[in-house]
Amino acid sequence: MAGKFAKLKVIPLGGLQEIGKNITAFEINDEIIVVDCGVAFPEDDMLGIDLVIPDFTYLTRNREKVKAVVLTHGHEDHIGALPYFLKELNVPIYGTKLTIGLIENKLKEHNILNKVNRICVKYGEYVKIGANFKVEFIATTHSIADSCALAITTPAGVVIHSGDFKIDYTPIQGPPIDLQRFAQLGKKGVLLFMCESTNVELKGFTMSERSVGVIFDEIFAESLNQRIMVATFSSNIHRIQQVINCAIKYKRKVAVIGRSMNNVVKTACELGYLNVPKKVFIDVSEIKNYTDDKIVIIMTGSQGETMSALSRIAQNDHKQVEIKPMDKVIISASPIPGNEKNVYRVINCLLKKGAEVVYEGLKDVHVSGHARQEEIKVLHALIKPKYFMPIHGEYKHLRAHANLAMELGMDKKNVFVLERGEVLEVGRDFGRISGSVPSGQVLVDGLGVGDVGNIVLRDRKHLSQDGLMIVVVSMDKAEGTLISGPDIISRGFVYVRESEYLISDAKSVVREALLSCEGTPISEWAYIKTMIKDTLKDFLWQKTKRSPMILPIIMEI
Amino acid sequence: MAGKFAKLKVIPLGGLQEIGKNITAFEINDEIIVVDCGVAFPEDDMLGIDLVIPDFTYLTRNREKVKAVVLTHGHEDHIGALPYFLKELNVPIYGTKLTIGLIENKLKEHNILNKVNRICVKYGEYVKIGANFKVEFIATTHSIADSCALAITTPAGVVIHSGDFKIDYTPIQGPPIDLQRFAQLGKKGVLLFMCESTNVELKGFTMSERSVGVIFDEIFAESLNQRIMVATFSSNIHRIQQVINCAIKYKRKVAVIGRSMNNVVKTACELGYLNVPKKVFIDVSEIKNYTDDKIVIIMTGSQGETMSALSRIAQNDHKQVEIKPMDKVIISASPIPGNEKNVYRVINCLLKKGAEVVYEGLKDVHVSGHARQEEIKVLHALIKPKYFMPIHGEYKHLRAHANLAMELGMDKKNVFVLERGEVLEVGRDFGRISGSVPSGQVLVDGLGVGDVGNIVLRDRKHLSQDGLMIVVVSMDKAEGTLISGPDIISRGFVYVRESEYLISDAKSVVREALLSCEGTPISEWAYIKTMIKDTLKDFLWQKTKRSPMILPIIMEI
Repeated sequence: MAGKFAKLKVIPLGGLQEIGKNITAFEINDEIIVVDCGVAFPEDDMLGIDLVIPDFTYLTRNREKVKAVVLTHGHEDHIGALPYFLKELNVPIYGTKLTIGLIENKLKEHNILNKVNRICVKYGEYVKIGANFKVEFIATTHSIADSCALAITTPAGVVIHSGDFKIDYTPIQGPPIDLQRFAQLGKKGVLLFMCESTNVELKGFTMSERSVGVIFDEIFAESLNQRIMVATFSSNIHRIQQVINCAIKYKRKVAVIGRSMNNVVKTACELGYLNVPKKVFIDVSEIKNYTDDKIVIIMTGSQGETMSALSRIAQNDHKQVEIKPMDKVIISASPIPGNEKNVYRVINCLLKKGAEVVYEGLKDVHVSGHARQEEIKVLHALIKPKYFMPIHGEYKHLRAHANLAMELGMDKKNVFVLERGEVLEVGRDFGRISGSVPSGQVLVDGLGVGDVGNIVLRDRKHLSQDGLMIVVVSMDKAEGTLISGPDIISRGFVYVRESEYLISDAKSVVREALLSCEGTPISEWAYIKTMIKDTLKDFLWQKTKRSPMILPIIMEI
Repeated sequence: MAGKFAKLKVIPLGGLQEIGKNITAFEINDEIIVVDCGVAFPEDDMLGIDLVIPDFTYLTRNREKVKAVVLTHGHEDHIGALPYFLKELNVPIYGTKLTIGLIENKLKEHNILNKVNRICVKYGEYVKIGANFKVEFIATTHSIADSCALAITTPAGVVIHSGDFKIDYTPIQGPPIDLQRFAQLGKKGVLLFMCESTNVELKGFTMSERSVGVIFDEIFAESLNQRIMVATFSSNIHRIQQVINCAIKYKRKVAVIGRSMNNVVKTACELGYLNVPKKVFIDVSEIKNYTDDKIVIIMTGSQGETMSALSRIAQNDHKQVEIKPMDKVIISASPIPGNEKNVYRVINCLLKKGAEVVYEGLKDVHVSGHARQEEIKVLHALIKPKYFMPIHGEYKHLRAHANLAMELGMDKKNVFVLERGEVLEVGRDFGRISGSVPSGQVLVDGLGVGDVGNIVLRDRKHLSQDGLMIVVVSMDKAEGTLISGPDIISRGFVYVRESEYLISDAKSVVREALLSCEGTPISEWAYIKTMIKDTLKDFLWQKTKRSPMILPIIMEI
C-alpha cells in the first residue's frame, strides 16, 4: 500500500527510565526494520545485574517481517544488545565503518561473527531494505566518530531519526553535521521527525569538541615536568586523538591502559579513525624507561568504575602503574547521574596521594556529545516536520522537548510523547498513538539472560537490607516431635559474637513455640515453617527493629 | 597554661567521605569542648544501614575532660547524633533557640529530654565553659534559621569556626550574617580559622534566599487556577515562610504533609521562626473543602526519598492527596549527589500523571545555603587568620579550599588539611599536625548501634549480588555416610522454576562429591562443608558465571 493510505508504525521497544532509547521498530506493509539495538544500564535496585537488554518478543513473534537492523552509532546503548538479538533473529546489519568495526569486536566475543551479514555504508549513501524502506545515512557529530542520523523513506513518507548528535562545526575528524541535507529533506517534506532529548533541558549551545583540545594544550604547557594521565570514555576517539596530538606536540609517548580502551584504540587505528604516527604509542611496560615529562597515559575509569584502570591506580591496586605525588590526572568526562560519588571517591583518593587532579568544574576538560536547546532548534527549523516524536530521554526530557517543539510552532496534536511499547501510527494525513505491543527489559546476570526477575531481585533486596537467618530443626516424621535443634545460622544480620544472647534467645523462642504445638497432630510441615517464621520475625523486630529473611529448614527423621 | 606555650588541640572526629564534619573536639589544659554532633548519611555500600554516627571512643576515654557540646545549627549532620552521644556522656549542650528546639524533639523521641541540660544562647552572646573556653555565637545565614559561627577564645588564642554559612544580605528573617564581628575579631587577631568548603569549587556568589521568593511569586501568578504543591527540605524554614507568604498574597490555604515537615513547622511556629496568620494553615483532611485555586500543599520528598510524601503522591500511594492533571508541583531543592535518579523518577512519575513540574534547571526555584568562592573570600579577608583549616567537605573540597587560601596570600605551612582523627596542635607560635586519635564511624541499623560492621556488610553485599544457596544433607554420625539429601534451597539466585535442571544438576554434583569421600573416615564436618562449597561454587560459576553465597548444613543423625 502506498500514498494516502500507507500506514507506518513506529514502536519504541527499549529503555528503562529513558524512552525511545536502545531500540525502535519501524513497520509498514508487513516489513519491519529495527533502528539500533543497545543495552540499558541497570538501575540501583537491580542488584547484581550486569546488563539490561530489550525484550525482543514483539520482533521474534513477527520474525518473518524483520528485514534488518540499522545502526546510528557505536555506543553501547545503541549496539550492545546486538549479539543477544542476532542469536534470535539473524538479519543483516547496516552501519558506518567504525560502528560495524566495534560491533565486530562484540560478535567475536560471542562467537557469531561469521554468521552475521554486516553491511558498511558511507555518509550520504542510501540502502534499500525490503520493498518498503530506503535508509539514508546523514553525517552528524557526536561523542563517537562516524555517527549518523537516518532518513527513512517509506510509502507513508519520510522519517528523520536524529540518532545522538550535537552540532559541531569544527569536528576533530570527519565532516561537520550535514545541516544542508536536513534542510533539503525538510524542504521536500518530512512526515515525522524523531529527535534526541538528552540535553533539551539545557539552554544554549554545546561547545565544540575542539574546545577541549585547547584546554588540554594549556594543561600540557603548564605541566612540563609532570607525568600526565588522562581518563576518558574509551569510545570518545576524538578526545583520545586530541590527547595524542598534545602528546606529539610536547614530545611525550603515549601508553594506553584498560581493556576496552585498548580494544577501541586498536579498532580506530586499523580503520583510520585515529591518526597516530609510528613510535608514539608505547606499551605500558615501557613506561619505566621514560622520565615523567615524556609520558602520557590514557585510560578508562572516568566514571569511577570500581574495576577500571583509574580506580585501581587511585587505590594503589594496579599492577603496572603507581600514582606518584605531582602526577597530573585529567578526568575528561562528566559523571553520569548516579556515578558522582564514585567519581569523587577516586578524585579524593588521587589527591590524598599527592597527585594534582583536573576535573570538570575546575577546568573545561569535557564537553557533552549531545545538543542543547539552541542546537535542537536548528534541526527543527531545518526539518519542519509534520509530526514530531521526542526520543532518547527520561519522560521529563521528552515532555520538555515536546514543549520546545510547540514553542517553535508545532501543533500540540502533532507532537507525540510515547511510552515504551506504545505504537505511533503515521501516514500522509494522520498521526496517532494506536495501542501498544509487548515490551520490557530482560536482565542479564553473568551467563543468564532473563533468569533473574522481580522475585529474585526482591529477595536480593531483602537480603541486602537485613541479611538472613536460617533455622534448622530435626523432627520425628511419625510423631511430629522435636528431635534436635533449633540451630540458627545467620549471615548479614548482626555480628554473631557480639550478639550471642540475641541468637540464644532466638533459639529459645523458637524451641518454645515448637514444643507448644508438639502435642497437636500436625500433618503439614508448612504450618510449622510458618509458625517458626512468624515467631522469630516478631521476636527479632521487637529486639532489633530489623527483618532479616528467615528460612526454616525441617529435617524429617 | 596560658600565653606563649598554651597548646590547643583541634580534632575532627567525624565524617565519612566528608572531613571535619559532624563533630570536632577542642582540647586545651585537660578540658574538651565538642562542636556539633551530627550524623553522616550511609554510603551506597552500607547496605541496610539507617544512620552513621561518629565513634565517640576518644571522648568517652577522656570523659572527665569533656565539658560541653556547642551547636552551630540544627541540621541533622550537626545535631543528629546527639541522643547517642548524650547517652554516653551527659554534658550540657549550648545552641540558639531553634537549634535547641529541634534537638528537644529528638531527645523526646529517645526519652532523655529531662536528663539533658540545654542552654539557649543568642546571637552576639558568649558563654564561658570550664576554665579555658569562652564561646561566642556569631550570626550567620544558612538554609536553616538561627545558624551561627563560633568564636572560641582559649588560652592559646581565638579560633573561628564558620559553621555552615552563606553571605545573605537580605535574609527572610533574623539578621544578616554579622560581617562586622568577623572583621573586629580579625583585627584583634585570630589564631585559627576553620571554614566550611561545600561550595568552594563553585565560582561567584550564592544568590540570596529572597531570590527564590521572587520566582515563587511568578509561578503563583501564572498558576491562578491550579493547585500548587511545594516540596522542599523540612528544615528550610525561610523557604517555607516564602511559600506561605505567596499563599497569603494569592489567598490560598496551606496544608503541610509529611511527619518531619509537620514537626519542624510546629516547632518553628511555637518559637516564632515562622510567621503565619491564623487560619492560613488547614489540616490535610480539609483540602477537599477548597477548590484547587485556594490550596497550597507543602511537603517533604524533594530528594525523591521513597517513603516521603511527594514520592507517595507521585505513585498514587498517599492516603490523603491524589495527584491530578494540571496540578503544579514545585521541587524547591537540588538533588544531593547520589539522589539524582530518585528525584528524576519522581518527576517522571508526576509528569506522566499530567502534572506540571517545576524543578531546578527549568526555573531558579532553589538556592544553596552554602557560600561560593567569592563569599568564602570575604570571610578570609575579614578574619585574616594566622592558621587555616578547611572543614566540611570531601578531600577534594578541602584541597581546593586550601589552594584558595594560598591564592589569598596564606603561607602553605600555615594551612592544614586534616583527615578524620588527625590532631592539629596550634599555639601562638606554632601549628602542626601532631598525630591522630581513634576515630571512625558507627553504623546504626534499626535499634542496633555498632552491631553491624564490615563482615556483616560484606555478607549483605555478597547476598545482594548473587543471592544464596543452602545445601542440606543428613549424615550418619558414626559412619560418615550420606543418609538423605542433598536438598537445595536458593534465594535471590535464579528463578527456580525456570532453572529446574540447574538445581537438579547441582544436587547430583554435590551428591557425587559426597559419595566419593564416603569411604574415607572423616572426623571433621568442616572438611565436608568446604568440599560441598568448593564443588558447588565451581559448578555454578561454570554454568552461570555467578557466585551465590553457599551455606552447607550438615545434620548429624
